[in-house]
Amino acid sequence: MNPRVVEIAGSLIREVALKRRETTIDLGLGEPSLRPNGAHFEHAMRYIAKNGIKYTQNAGDPALREAIAAHYKYPGMHAVHNVCVTTGSQEAMYVTIKTLLDPAKDELLVVEPTFPSYLKMARLEGVLARGVGMSESDDFALDAQRILAAVNERTRAIVICSPNNPTGRVIHRDQAQQLVRGLESRGGDPVWLIHDEIYREQTFDEEAAYFAEYYPYTIVTNSVSKSNALTGLRLGWIIGPDAFVANAIKSHAWLTSCADTFAQQVALHVFMQPGGIHEHRTWYRTQFSGVLEALERSGLRYIKPEGSFYACVRLPDGVKSYDAALQLVQEHDVLAIPGVAFGELFDGWLRLSWVSRLRSVSEGIGRIGRYVTLLRGK
Amino acid sequence: MNPRVVEIAGSLIREVALKRRETTIDLGLGEPSLRPNGAHFEHAMRYIAKNGIKYTQNAGDPALREAIAAHYKYPGMHAVHNVCVTTGSQEAMYVTIKTLLDPAKDELLVVEPTFPSYLKMARLEGVLARGVGMSESDDFALDAQRILAAVNERTRAIVICSPNNPTGRVIHRDQAQQLVRGLESRGGDPVWLIHDEIYREQTFDEEAAYFAEYYPYTIVTNSVSKSNALTGLRLGWIIGPDAFVANAIKSHAWLTSCADTFAQQVALHVFMQPGGIHEHRTWYRTQFSGVLEALERSGLRYIKPEGSFYACVRLPDGVKSYDAALQLVQEHDVLAIPGVAFGELFDGWLRLSWVSRLRSVSEGIGRIGRYVTLLRGK
Repeated sequence: MNPRVVEIAGSLIREVALKRRETTIDLGLGEPSLRPNGAHFEHAMRYIAKNGIKYTQNAGDPALREAIAAHYKYPGMHAVHNVCVTTGSQEAMYVTIKTLLDPAKDELLVVEPTFPSYLKMARLEGVLARGVGMSESDDFALDAQRILAAVNERTRAIVICSPNNPTGRVIHRDQAQQLVRGLESRGGDPVWLIHDEIYREQTFDEEAAYFAEYYPYTIVTNSVSKSNALTGLRLGWIIGPDAFVANAIKSHAWLTSCADTFAQQVALHVFMQPGGIHEHRTWYRTQFSGVLEALERSGLRYIKPEGSFYACVRLPDGVKSYDAALQLVQEHDVLAIPGVAFGELFDGWLRLSWVSRLRSVSEGIGRIGRYVTLLRGK
Repeated sequence: MNPRVVEIAGSLIREVALKRRETTIDLGLGEPSLRPNGAHFEHAMRYIAKNGIKYTQNAGDPALREAIAAHYKYPGMHAVHNVCVTTGSQEAMYVTIKTLLDPAKDELLVVEPTFPSYLKMARLEGVLARGVGMSESDDFALDAQRILAAVNERTRAIVICSPNNPTGRVIHRDQAQQLVRGLESRGGDPVWLIHDEIYREQTFDEEAAYFAEYYPYTIVTNSVSKSNALTGLRLGWIIGPDAFVANAIKSHAWLTSCADTFAQQVALHVFMQPGGIHEHRTWYRTQFSGVLEALERSGLRYIKPEGSFYACVRLPDGVKSYDAALQLVQEHDVLAIPGVAFGELFDGWLRLSWVSRLRSVSEGIGRIGRYVTLLRGK
């Protein structure tokens, strides 16, 4: 068998999440607890009643590609051929890494702490990948100078998730501009920015920046999973410059042929509704305020989220996050994801997702607060 | 960018298929013209109205995995953990090749002529792959001795599509047993058989063999695409031995996370109905008889199909299949796929899919017959 596959670990996040019981307060898995809007599905049902469910073009239904391109209107990337529809943003990222980087010579830089998939995907592809850690003392703010300092001759692409999973930090406009200027001033082959915008509809900071608005060597991945409570639909996309997308479509075609035609119709209906992609925004804003209050009440040290639907809280020095997560789920019946799932750098932290009902989230945060107080007392 | 991606061609089949006009008789693309059974979708709608559309486990919904395992009942591979649900059989095959073969030393053998994806996938993975051609004088029968003669020290897996696309040939029990005995008698590391069973429900030959019934080192890929007119649903699976599937699930998890939850419910409903996977079988049998009559009437040399929904017809010596397919679509308004799309070995042939209405298929075959007669006269 392929040693790259044999050696790679499965998802630690999912491993921990499986320890959940019926009674457990679930601050674990990263999917909305909202229900999706049934109207999108009814549209897709009408479509397939009329048309059956045939393959679309490899890159996706042109109507959906056009709707996505027109919604985001990124300079130089707003036409049908700038979009490739994929099986969720997971395949979007996989195809991007596979297409963009030459395993023989290129290196991928991953801004950490972050979702572990990027490094795992690179490893599965035999692509050299390296994390660049943001500063804990700065609550892991996305910092242009730190990122630029880590770029070397082999670096051909940088992955940034903003709003970030797990920290909830977003890249601010001044930092984005500094990063772009720094990359542009290097000369030579461009260093690409891969912006994972999966939490874009959960952004709570006015300063949030989108690289594709500033920098032509940007590739965006996203999906309707988090915005519209459609995680299980597996419908995402890549937006990028023409030549890149033409190649990405080839990778995508040989990996999965095309995305699910039914799912594409669901997503098309989302984009056809004015504000469809934002339909859960109000709920998230209300929830966000309640979560901030619960965090304040808890006495925990936390990173003030600027986006995403996570909040991260600090464990006492020396406590391993995996051990703490196990104790919390087994003894306090609250599921949190250990920071180590996002790299060693984040082992002192827990990631709490706050998409369950607010009362339940508040109770969970309260239990973690009391648990940490107890640990400190020891 | 990754030179493996840049250098790889897109799908020639899809390129030719795009030349179709409104009026064209379509003997091109490989998808049923039947409509899917709406009851499967209504079940999925009820499921998501109740449960939303959350992620399933990476390997798929255990109920679906169990239903698939129980339906095929392959010896030693009939439990939940022997199945990984994928985004169509395309991802099933991709994940299988990625997981099974070590790019540093293993070689994949592909029984040709066949669907071009297998070789393309291997190339994208940097895995050495080689075709072993069946004999044209024997109408490309799947021949154990030819396959065995091509196995060398590096060969770790053999891909066989049976019923085969494009030839419609199936592997017969005597040949399957010879092949398995030959592989077993080699000693050393096992050579795996990857059986693409995608046209299993279009099998018209009593002698058709399924390797997983004879040989423990078999991996099966399949989907509901062709059996139930659900190509656009993108719902397939891998069946294999425990250790292999455990690793395949990891590849699959990092590539696409999990298959579409809605699509999994559609497939679950197919398997929940007695005979659900065979629901279009009668239609195919009737169609098959009509197509054989049309082929006989046409005067064309053809390979008698034993399965799939294709028939292959011979062009006069020296005629390039790509040129013939272009002339046919442009001047005779009938779309056929040039044999060269399945390798040089098959350049003298055209592949005709026969899933449109019988009258239309017969008319198309008639036009190709007259075209070939005309060419012969020149």
